[in-house]
Amino acid sequence: MNSTLINIGDELLIGQVINTNAAVMAKMLGAAGIGIERTVTIGDEPAAIRDTLRDCLEISDIVIITGGLGPTKDDLTKQVLCDFFHSELYENEEALDNVRKRMAAFGRELTDINRQQAWVPRCCTVLPNPLGTAPGMWFDVAGTPHPKVVISLPGVPFEMEGLMRESVIPRLRERFATGHIIHKTLIVQGIGESFLSDLIEPWELALPDCLSLAYLPQPGMTRLRLTARGDDADALQTAIDTALAQLRPIAGSYITCEGFDTLPAFIAHTMTEAGLTLATAESCTGGALSAQLTALAGASNYFVGGVVSYSNEVKESVLHVPHDILATHGAVSEPTAIHMAEGVRRQLHADYGIATTGIAGPGGGSPEKPVGTVWTAVATPSGTVTQKLSIPRRRAQVIEGACQQILGLLAKCLKERK
Amino acid sequence: MNSTLINIGDELLIGQVINTNAAVMAKMLGAAGIGIERTVTIGDEPAAIRDTLRDCLEISDIVIITGGLGPTKDDLTKQVLCDFFHSELYENEEALDNVRKRMAAFGRELTDINRQQAWVPRCCTVLPNPLGTAPGMWFDVAGTPHPKVVISLPGVPFEMEGLMRESVIPRLRERFATGHIIHKTLIVQGIGESFLSDLIEPWELALPDCLSLAYLPQPGMTRLRLTARGDDADALQTAIDTALAQLRPIAGSYITCEGFDTLPAFIAHTMTEAGLTLATAESCTGGALSAQLTALAGASNYFVGGVVSYSNEVKESVLHVPHDILATHGAVSEPTAIHMAEGVRRQLHADYGIATTGIAGPGGGSPEKPVGTVWTAVATPSGTVTQKLSIPRRRAQVIEGACQQILGLLAKCLKERK
Repeated sequence: MNSTLINIGDELLIGQVINTNAAVMAKMLGAAGIGIERTVTIGDEPAAIRDTLRDCLEISDIVIITGGLGPTKDDLTKQVLCDFFHSELYENEEALDNVRKRMAAFGRELTDINRQQAWVPRCCTVLPNPLGTAPGMWFDVAGTPHPKVVISLPGVPFEMEGLMRESVIPRLRERFATGHIIHKTLIVQGIGESFLSDLIEPWELALPDCLSLAYLPQPGMTRLRLTARGDDADALQTAIDTALAQLRPIAGSYITCEGFDTLPAFIAHTMTEAGLTLATAESCTGGALSAQLTALAGASNYFVGGVVSYSNEVKESVLHVPHDILATHGAVSEPTAIHMAEGVRRQLHADYGIATTGIAGPGGGSPEKPVGTVWTAVATPSGTVTQKLSIPRRRAQVIEGACQQILGLLAKCLKERK
Repeated sequence: MNSTLINIGDELLIGQVINTNAAVMAKMLGAAGIGIERTVTIGDEPAAIRDTLRDCLEISDIVIITGGLGPTKDDLTKQVLCDFFHSELYENEEALDNVRKRMAAFGRELTDINRQQAWVPRCCTVLPNPLGTAPGMWFDVAGTPHPKVVISLPGVPFEMEGLMRESVIPRLRERFATGHIIHKTLIVQGIGESFLSDLIEPWELALPDCLSLAYLPQPGMTRLRLTARGDDADALQTAIDTALAQLRPIAGSYITCEGFDTLPAFIAHTMTEAGLTLATAESCTGGALSAQLTALAGASNYFVGGVVSYSNEVKESVLHVPHDILATHGAVSEPTAIHMAEGVRRQLHADYGIATTGIAGPGGGSPEKPVGTVWTAVATPSGTVTQKLSIPRRRAQVIEGACQQILGLLAKCLKERK
């Protein structure tokens, strides 16, 4: 049993809006054991909507459409669906009630344009939308050997998400008696994608049929995603556990963490649980490291703050890196990284201090210290560890790679203290 | 002339990675005058890749495929393309050279798997990829009445972007004679998109045919992009200048800057030229503000550094915000923002200090200070100005909106000093 998503909207096609709906819906469907065959993005064009719907119904049991349900004139999905199912529009009492209530909540009058939101094809089941005026619509497709459904949802992300959670997923589970899908993500560092592939190939080839593996490389790390598909959730979990137990002796030294999609998520979880605090001292990463940590809600549970010591003066005055160290070894050096990490740990009264100093480029490189040279340090309650990185790439990749590497070094320190 | 994008990758279909490539490519193609008919996301499945490619070629002149070119086994695009065009794989000398150089730069040996990256279908033109090992591939489709092309690019965002900019867009312009295109971007703040639209509608309706206007709203600002298309570059420039001269009396008070795509670019240009320096004090933006400034090369010309004062203790100890102020007014208040901006300006010896303090959410809100309440301050050589923001959105939007608003306030201060 599989599904196809059709996301409708000119704003998606011209790149004005990034399509986050597809990823959110994929996660929700995947958790319910429903795979996605493809997603298609098209504009507000009746012919494109009709043709795409027809094509997708040929290859999928479930077609979910988002967008094109708003009150403005470029939104045409509802009429296309009505024609597609040879139905007619009528004013749905329940949907009208919802529109009326929402307008009242905003102190607005009910206009004719609002009222149109309550008109739906007679053949559909209305899915109530408590967060907006456009209702969801569920169509059972007639005349197919197996059950097939078409579902139409508003494109506004939180309305779509509410409808998926409250109506669509429960109804799909009921209709299709779905199987299980389990994902497990490993963050791997310190080895390139192709070397990793060589190293674990025998293990990968021996994986049971219910398991599949994907490589997700990005600057500073590769994520490995193991996916289990089948009917027996316990058996799938056992298959994943067994595969991981076999992988650890082969590649365990490169695995920074298991079961977390990102390093900040692992660090937040581990430090919060242990009651530890963290401070950052950033030179070449320029704030990006702190930004990644604070992008997650709850960061204040362990992250006390940081210093972006871009100039040498700030390294001296705020972090108390000795002038001699900077003069003798330079800003991009192991001693400077150590003093930055220890300085911020001390100045901000944190349990751990992490530091980056390097040459992000494109300028500023030299034969001894080319662009992409970065020193990182983690100051812990029991000493300081350092790492030298060489990331001969563009500025954004140097910054991102340095962030992931220092977070990986911190994660390793946190794991080893256990 | 239109195009279709095919984004390949299981990680996209299961929602682990949000498809940002589609939006980036749409913008780049749009800037070259090439529209997008649809985008399709599919998994690493040979049959799906082949069928989708065939369908897309029926409706489009240009089909661009991303993903599925890595050295690992789940990447199958190259073989499918080879079969589709009835070609055979061979080792391309130029591509192999590139792989060899990149491995050498990382101090790594050339493995058989690396070497496979240099194998390409004989019928394609290799597009060099200086940022990665997988080359781009350009296929001229034989036997069609009008020219049609299929282009295959790696899915890694910065590699894709580099290849698009350096190879694909120039070649498409040449092949399809797309004419001249001039863009001018205005950053507009302090007015919502729909009010802005009402305000400038008469001006927009009177624009000459060679000009088009796009609204690019994002948290904290709207970018207006004026695009001129035609054969006479001088006439296009004159049309843009005239339109802008007519717009300024109508909406000038909301225009933060003209001719820069981002506020950090405007600020970097203005402060570097004037020999001024900047420091940041961030609470709710958590490093994102500094990260935006330092993402641009040359930031060290004006940016001395910043303090991420996430905890109150750091606000007191590093920025010297008086304890009484925090106790009386709270961390999210005008007096705290003022003391943070003035504190960081003084402590880091900068000409300007900018500060943010607010509630990014989802937790931490109260009836008096709901989630999205943010105070910002700009401390200048001649005094401090503040702004209160209300951004009742999700965490990422609060952070991004606060960054753009404080940068806009700084830009205004910099302009007014002239």
